[in-house]
Amino acid sequence: MKLFYENDFYYIPNMKKKVTLKQIARELDVSISTVSKSLRNSLEIGEETRLKVQAFAKFYHYKPNNIALSLKNRKTKTIGIIIPEIVHHFFSTVINGIEHIANENGYSVIICLSDDSFDKEVLNMEMLANGSIDGFIMSLSKETQQKKDFHHITEVINQGMPVVMFDRVTDDIQCDKVIIDDELAAYEAVQSLIDKGRKKIALVTTVDYVSVGKLRTDGYTKALLENGLPFDQDLIIKIENVDNCEITIAKLLEDKTIDAVFAVNELFAVTIIKTANKMGIKVPEDIAVIAFTDGIISKYSTPSITTVTQNGIEMGNMAAKTLIERLESEEDENEEDEEEEIYKTIVIETHLIERESTN
Amino acid sequence: MKLFYENDFYYIPNMKKKVTLKQIARELDVSISTVSKSLRNSLEIGEETRLKVQAFAKFYHYKPNNIALSLKNRKTKTIGIIIPEIVHHFFSTVINGIEHIANENGYSVIICLSDDSFDKEVLNMEMLANGSIDGFIMSLSKETQQKKDFHHITEVINQGMPVVMFDRVTDDIQCDKVIIDDELAAYEAVQSLIDKGRKKIALVTTVDYVSVGKLRTDGYTKALLENGLPFDQDLIIKIENVDNCEITIAKLLEDKTIDAVFAVNELFAVTIIKTANKMGIKVPEDIAVIAFTDGIISKYSTPSITTVTQNGIEMGNMAAKTLIERLESEEDENEEDEEEEIYKTIVIETHLIERESTN
Repeated sequence: MKLFYENDFYYIPNMKKKVTLKQIARELDVSISTVSKSLRNSLEIGEETRLKVQAFAKFYHYKPNNIALSLKNRKTKTIGIIIPEIVHHFFSTVINGIEHIANENGYSVIICLSDDSFDKEVLNMEMLANGSIDGFIMSLSKETQQKKDFHHITEVINQGMPVVMFDRVTDDIQCDKVIIDDELAAYEAVQSLIDKGRKKIALVTTVDYVSVGKLRTDGYTKALLENGLPFDQDLIIKIENVDNCEITIAKLLEDKTIDAVFAVNELFAVTIIKTANKMGIKVPEDIAVIAFTDGIISKYSTPSITTVTQNGIEMGNMAAKTLIERLESEEDENEEDEEEEIYKTIVIETHLIERESTN
Repeated sequence: MKLFYENDFYYIPNMKKKVTLKQIARELDVSISTVSKSLRNSLEIGEETRLKVQAFAKFYHYKPNNIALSLKNRKTKTIGIIIPEIVHHFFSTVINGIEHIANENGYSVIICLSDDSFDKEVLNMEMLANGSIDGFIMSLSKETQQKKDFHHITEVINQGMPVVMFDRVTDDIQCDKVIIDDELAAYEAVQSLIDKGRKKIALVTTVDYVSVGKLRTDGYTKALLENGLPFDQDLIIKIENVDNCEITIAKLLEDKTIDAVFAVNELFAVTIIKTANKMGIKVPEDIAVIAFTDGIISKYSTPSITTVTQNGIEMGNMAAKTLIERLESEEDENEEDEEEEIYKTIVIETHLIERESTN
């Protein structure tokens, strides 16, 4: 104990209550990830920092999640969902899909948002794993995908709490996954444009580090090459912010030889249509437009937009089924006889919904 | 104990674990509300049922939420949100507003959906109140508003856990509330149509029991009457299901003397525009359209739609501020000196966003 009175720690007024990872991080001016790793004695963290964090945590009675213990003592019959954002129709439909299966099986559902922030993802997982839920269904935040730091997920899995990932997944974690074949879906969308006689097809995509973006570009490229169409880097534009992308799109559409656009989301698609309208370019006569989405704007746009569905409901259903099966098979397991886990990756089928923008 | 062996109870295999309200309800074939009220010894429930539930709960060691206890022992620094649905842009924006203020103040946020079901609302409140959170921010489910059964909320408040209601609120519960003035907002929207010279204004609204629907109709009516325009019941149509409302809307629009429509949500508005297009009626030249919404379809529709914002972000901000202030003032309170709580109702300002559909 002496350490702290002699040393660089000062009194923290509000620490009568249980101290959290976040408070430790703030007080020691290190990242949450550093605190979390130090507490697991990870050699990734220098000895000095590691010992400082451990001593601090001990002094303030930091209690790590005792997941294994809580798992043995009770089942909460609750599923925790962690998603990057909520103002996004795709994630809402996945949640509805999860709720449906969960409720049918007597489970409640708790949702937390990571807001595409690594720290929020870590904190939310810590909070939920702390006895509130039996298992996780999650889609990675952009920042987590950039950092490639998945220790918080590994930790939860190692302590015996099952995790099912959907949509934004990573090969670096061994767990059950539910995805769509983004490359195939993009390939099929572009192929459908080619089948309708379109020859110069642009791709409007995002500037980001999310795994699905790359896969969709691969599918686009593959369809062009297999059909003997030239691949032209200038036909791929990456949008930073949908709120001011009209100029970028207008520039693309100045090339009057472009006869189709494949957009990775419906906000891009609807902006392409509005911009084309203003420029006197007719959709679908002059250019066809197709978008990746489960959203509702496409249906109500004028013209309505042909889409590749992401099948969020089905994705949610399968994620919930997979998690519940794993939770309930664990109950029957003989603990003496632990075998290597076999994880599955379920690929949900996508399909085209043909509307006015490609006829 | 003898009671159960002689009587109508059978062995329930999975009851080693903590028994829940839901399980008791299922086993005794009564509603969750009946169980909950019986356990509070409410005289609303007949003596026989009440005693049966109490005996059953005791036998299976039902543990009610000991909220007061958990409140004294620790703060979770977590806010629980209960909303009716998630595939609804308004609720998503409120959540974003809550998250922003919560995170700024070091609080995490947990979201549960009631799916507009009374039972799910009760179960989710029970689950969250059981030590996971410090207080609630909630919007009532349709079914709860119909039933006018708020005992689950009263119970939570009586046990010392603060509740802030937003949007769908009730006068039957004394707590902090954040609302918009739906009547005034509707009045102003209709007045703006009248100011533009529109004389025969229809209202397209929902068939439901939600408080806001009535208030918006009152505002519509008031604007007509104050401007000396005739009120005509035939100009008010109530839509059951947006997916097949085109026929109803087409019928309304057959009356070519109608020169404006006020819709209570943007899906109605965009359907009105699409239907008008098909019928050769021009928006805004022949009819002006205005909608209540925070959604994004209005912005991307052709023509774009003039809206009354519900100001979800601001509503979320205020709800979170109000709850956090209450949580943190409670910490300082002298328990010996408990005064009558004074609750506030905050009214968020709305405003018109003028777009193409009313010019």
